[in-house]
Amino acid sequence: MLKEQLDKIMRPKSVAVIGASTKPKTIGSEIMQRLRDYKFNGNIYPVNPKGGIIEGFQAYTSVAEIPGEVDLAVIVVNAKFVLDTIDQCHAKGIKGLCIITAGFKETGKEGAEAEKQLLAKVREYGMRCVGPNCLGVLNTNPEIRMDATFAESLPVAGDIGFVSQSGALGGGILNILKDLNLGFAQFISIGNQADVNAETALEYWENDDDVKQILLYMESIQNPANFRKLATRITKKKPILALKAGRSAAGASAASSHTGSLAGADKAADALLKQCGVIREFSLKNLFANAKAFSNCPIPKGNRVAIVTNSGGPGIMATDAVCESGMQMAKISDKTKEELRSFLPSAASVKNPIDMIASAPIEHYKQTLETVLKDPEVDMVAVIYLPFLGLKDIDVAKALMEIKAKNPEKPILGVFMTTSEFFTEISKMDVNMPFYMYAEEAAEAMARLDRQRKWMERPEGKMPVYDVDKAKAERIIKAAVADGRAQLTTLESIDVLDAYGIRACKYGLATNEEEVVNLGNSIGYPVVMKMTSKTTSHKTDVGGVRVNIQSEEQLRAEYQDLIAKLTEKGLIDGLEGVIIQEMVKGNREMVCGIATDPQYGPMMMFGLGGVFIETMKDVTFRIAPLTDVDADEMIKSVKAYELLKGARGTKPADMAQIQETLLRLSQMVNDFKFIDELDINPLLISEKTGEGIAVDGRIKVRVEEVKEYFGCGTECCSCSK
Amino acid sequence: MLKEQLDKIMRPKSVAVIGASTKPKTIGSEIMQRLRDYKFNGNIYPVNPKGGIIEGFQAYTSVAEIPGEVDLAVIVVNAKFVLDTIDQCHAKGIKGLCIITAGFKETGKEGAEAEKQLLAKVREYGMRCVGPNCLGVLNTNPEIRMDATFAESLPVAGDIGFVSQSGALGGGILNILKDLNLGFAQFISIGNQADVNAETALEYWENDDDVKQILLYMESIQNPANFRKLATRITKKKPILALKAGRSAAGASAASSHTGSLAGADKAADALLKQCGVIREFSLKNLFANAKAFSNCPIPKGNRVAIVTNSGGPGIMATDAVCESGMQMAKISDKTKEELRSFLPSAASVKNPIDMIASAPIEHYKQTLETVLKDPEVDMVAVIYLPFLGLKDIDVAKALMEIKAKNPEKPILGVFMTTSEFFTEISKMDVNMPFYMYAEEAAEAMARLDRQRKWMERPEGKMPVYDVDKAKAERIIKAAVADGRAQLTTLESIDVLDAYGIRACKYGLATNEEEVVNLGNSIGYPVVMKMTSKTTSHKTDVGGVRVNIQSEEQLRAEYQDLIAKLTEKGLIDGLEGVIIQEMVKGNREMVCGIATDPQYGPMMMFGLGGVFIETMKDVTFRIAPLTDVDADEMIKSVKAYELLKGARGTKPADMAQIQETLLRLSQMVNDFKFIDELDINPLLISEKTGEGIAVDGRIKVRVEEVKEYFGCGTECCSCSK
Repeated sequence: MLKEQLDKIMRPKSVAVIGASTKPKTIGSEIMQRLRDYKFNGNIYPVNPKGGIIEGFQAYTSVAEIPGEVDLAVIVVNAKFVLDTIDQCHAKGIKGLCIITAGFKETGKEGAEAEKQLLAKVREYGMRCVGPNCLGVLNTNPEIRMDATFAESLPVAGDIGFVSQSGALGGGILNILKDLNLGFAQFISIGNQADVNAETALEYWENDDDVKQILLYMESIQNPANFRKLATRITKKKPILALKAGRSAAGASAASSHTGSLAGADKAADALLKQCGVIREFSLKNLFANAKAFSNCPIPKGNRVAIVTNSGGPGIMATDAVCESGMQMAKISDKTKEELRSFLPSAASVKNPIDMIASAPIEHYKQTLETVLKDPEVDMVAVIYLPFLGLKDIDVAKALMEIKAKNPEKPILGVFMTTSEFFTEISKMDVNMPFYMYAEEAAEAMARLDRQRKWMERPEGKMPVYDVDKAKAERIIKAAVADGRAQLTTLESIDVLDAYGIRACKYGLATNEEEVVNLGNSIGYPVVMKMTSKTTSHKTDVGGVRVNIQSEEQLRAEYQDLIAKLTEKGLIDGLEGVIIQEMVKGNREMVCGIATDPQYGPMMMFGLGGVFIETMKDVTFRIAPLTDVDADEMIKSVKAYELLKGARGTKPADMAQIQETLLRLSQMVNDFKFIDELDINPLLISEKTGEGIAVDGRIKVRVEEVKEYFGCGTECCSCSK
Repeated sequence: MLKEQLDKIMRPKSVAVIGASTKPKTIGSEIMQRLRDYKFNGNIYPVNPKGGIIEGFQAYTSVAEIPGEVDLAVIVVNAKFVLDTIDQCHAKGIKGLCIITAGFKETGKEGAEAEKQLLAKVREYGMRCVGPNCLGVLNTNPEIRMDATFAESLPVAGDIGFVSQSGALGGGILNILKDLNLGFAQFISIGNQADVNAETALEYWENDDDVKQILLYMESIQNPANFRKLATRITKKKPILALKAGRSAAGASAASSHTGSLAGADKAADALLKQCGVIREFSLKNLFANAKAFSNCPIPKGNRVAIVTNSGGPGIMATDAVCESGMQMAKISDKTKEELRSFLPSAASVKNPIDMIASAPIEHYKQTLETVLKDPEVDMVAVIYLPFLGLKDIDVAKALMEIKAKNPEKPILGVFMTTSEFFTEISKMDVNMPFYMYAEEAAEAMARLDRQRKWMERPEGKMPVYDVDKAKAERIIKAAVADGRAQLTTLESIDVLDAYGIRACKYGLATNEEEVVNLGNSIGYPVVMKMTSKTTSHKTDVGGVRVNIQSEEQLRAEYQDLIAKLTEKGLIDGLEGVIIQEMVKGNREMVCGIATDPQYGPMMMFGLGGVFIETMKDVTFRIAPLTDVDADEMIKSVKAYELLKGARGTKPADMAQIQETLLRLSQMVNDFKFIDELDINPLLISEKTGEGIAVDGRIKVRVEEVKEYFGCGTECCSCSK
């Protein structure tokens, strides 16, 4: 269904250019030239009220006049004519639109209104539409050969599907790619993405064999949940590399003024991309450098890299880069070493990096590469060339490509520290391996290949459903909202956690000294005393937390002191009482919780807690809901994982129980979408059992949504419904 | 003196090539060709036993036969003839040598021996020598024009002084630079650096106006202390950029097998470079990209960047990169905005990034750049160009350079996302600003310029000398060594710290229960009890630390329990007793200490302590001795600094006192070079006073050096000397 619809745009048999023009340097002229010069494999119908001949094609004065059927209408008329043009296209039976024309959402309120109407028409007429405000579309398949863009250069064919949210950038990229031995299979400039967006393209390309890898330039993700579903599936089949701009606060603010879209918080975007196996790049340079590897390399079987070089220095730099990219230097087997020694000079080093020394002739490159490729300890090979007397770079490259042709199963990357002439020459050749100028680029590319391998091997994960006391949690939340509070008290928060089966420490609420003492005595010393207040949320700041209370006498004294202090500070009014808690012994304080991103929805957090949370920022985020694999990865991805594993004689934490804690929280926020923030800080790792125990909790809800959830207003919120 | 000596090598009036050859593709032939083709401004004397004409020059059968005076002898004869050749050079009165010949230290023991003899001769004859095992030397000054290398390409003249420890790499670099609009003033391939090394070059270039920036490729630093002294001084005048390879353990091991030099630990190298203002680069690509900025930009007055673009997407990416590189996006003044609005179209954005939109003609580029440069809120400008209909990249570049010529005082960087043809064209032009293809490269380069600014503004710092009880510290250490121990006990360690005026908490040693109780009562509760043992250094692991002891009864019980546990574990024999310490309240545990690197000597460490030290690795290193500025930077450079500043109502730490602690430690290790390791962990930040208090300490010494220090062996170490 989607395929059929998008085919009208991406694989059309005929294209009408509405607004085609004879005037040079106009978009209406440029698009016509591109279609003609790239030799579009179908009918081209320019439409211009004046008729005549445009770029060698008969022009029609209106859409209706076009003699044949039209699959795709490329619209470049002035914005004020676009809506009418869509009507005309509908009358002609056209189902595919690519609206280049700008002047919609990106210009402000009026434009946004026009874009709304545009979309309504598209939907009503059962059309699909790329744009408005875009650079156009492109398909290099020899059967199609459609360049319906106004980029400066004609495209080079390749295996990349590219989606760009920035039109000008798309044009710049077409220029750059030519130098990089990289080509597009298809390119969609989504512009304002009124209808077709990155997700549409992902879905369309999922089973398109022309597209072997997908590259995205995004400033926002329109429907994160849908993106996640699609990308998680597609990345298992082909790599997706994304450059998501607007990372910094300043960048994000520039992004939202740029396309009029709300740029989501970068942490959320980062978590989302990570979770669905999308490889995130942080510069165009890296995006392309790494795409070059995916175009020319198989996915490796492992992360053990061999380096073959004719110069020691670059071999060392490559070794540094390989290790810093999280891969391993392969341990060359004795058999391979022996074989290498049989033909390399004695000054050569047959340890990895394998240094053939500067005088290495082409034969040594070939023989060494072949020998190393055979070694089962080696998963990938980077071959370094530095100019040496009498050895021509291009000859070495050709020799390597010969070997590669005979050994397609392992990635081979070339590092050629030579002149730009070499790269120009290479860019005109049909290559079967990527060439880089610097070792660091090759190492990074190998790391990406390896990451894709790991992702493809990664189990999909499950979202277990736990048996919880949902009704109890609902009752507590409802009551708090009825009480006019978005922020639950500590006591309420801990009760909600408890209802969801999250291990919290024993506690009770006391409102006077006698209750305090009774509770302390029944829980058993040492205990912790914490104030609970409707008005003060950061208890520590006001001295509202007293730990390690050893006896009834001490408990009494601390309580009296607290009351006195709060009275003195004028904070006594909000006080609901104090919580007396079992004191869990442990010095490892973790944090987990939920934050809500306005665009991406609830995000789960896990990491190092306590006083370190804001300083060390050793936390990780994932978009909810979590799979068990997500939760596992969260736990393992923070530095504090080393603490959890148990260092210096401390007990290893109960990882399964911590994972379950995260999954139960995920289930909670999936049940209660109105949870705005939730903090368990600390989640104290018990010295005795290794469990993560919620010692403190804070929950904040979005009141309006809570009311909606319960289907009633504030008035009736004391009802039992 | 050094200038005079090195001038013989780097600014010779005559060069003899000993081992010159007519055989093509030999080094003896290539060197002659380079000297000739680059038009050396002096006499060239090839020396070859066969005489004849070599590359158009009369060859001499021996050095003695050369008619004129010779400043520099380039030696390319077989290794076995090198020593004799040096003798002949001496006989001829030659003072400058460049020994290309390989086959010395890098080949093993025998070669190292030959190199030792080589150096002895050089010293004896009062010569200076580059190499052996190198690519040669180069000076592009029009008065010199010496290319005495065998690199493939002739050099491009420029303002860079380059030292390479890898010969082949030097050759590759000469190729690459041509494409980058970068040129060398001088180049020294130091090879095995028997005599001339990076430090020699630094000193030689310090006051050489041809050399405006110094680039280093190093695998090791020969004399760290000397390097530090020189670089600290020179970086205040001109930037030094260094690529130090061998960062990873695997890379370092490759490095030491490569040049036969011992690669120092990377942490030490990193600390050293940081301390002396050297800009460390992690890839050749970055080294050159950033050198391009130093070649073409003044040092900015601040870090506020304006971005001018004709495309929104790249503007956002540039903004991200600027913020992530630690600079600020300039706040464009209202006046500038107004001026921009007067000529830019209404769809343009005059906020930073300033988006002139895709249709911007050259005039807008010029006017916008000029307007923005006038804004006092702007320190640097990056101008982005993406191809657009009818706008030629090279024309835009020329227009920008015109503006730059009129505005030399602020750095202007071009980001041209266009074809490689543009960069080829630019590389042939005389430019006055750097051009990059990607925004991230420009941002990084600006960050480097800004870093150089900060370094030049940074005060030099002082090394205060504190009044300490050195004699007491000596007595304690001497006694421990006399007792056969390299590791001081906790008690001894704390006493040494105390002798150096480092604030340690009140304590005493007790060896039986009564002493324990007496001490506890006199210090006052709560106290901490710690075992002190000659055999067990990690006390925590065996339960040897008991905190928060509240009363005499509890103290008694804990002591009895400890003794029982140690007896059970068989650890009771090493026990010297227990230390009873005042319990300092505070939850901020820092660490500081000293570690010794085999090459770089004593290093100071500071950072987050306690259980987090190994997990969070939030520590920083500097080479000792420290200046007050070094100490200050150490404290501010760790994440935990945020904790020290006081967060959530905790008291700010006493920074001056912590700085003094570091400086006192530095003084200690300067006095006692035999200290191998010293740990203060934790340096607890008192909740009450904000002071850093040494709660625990460990000192380890190198016994042999201690004996040397005291001028006596073990036998007499009970003497009072």
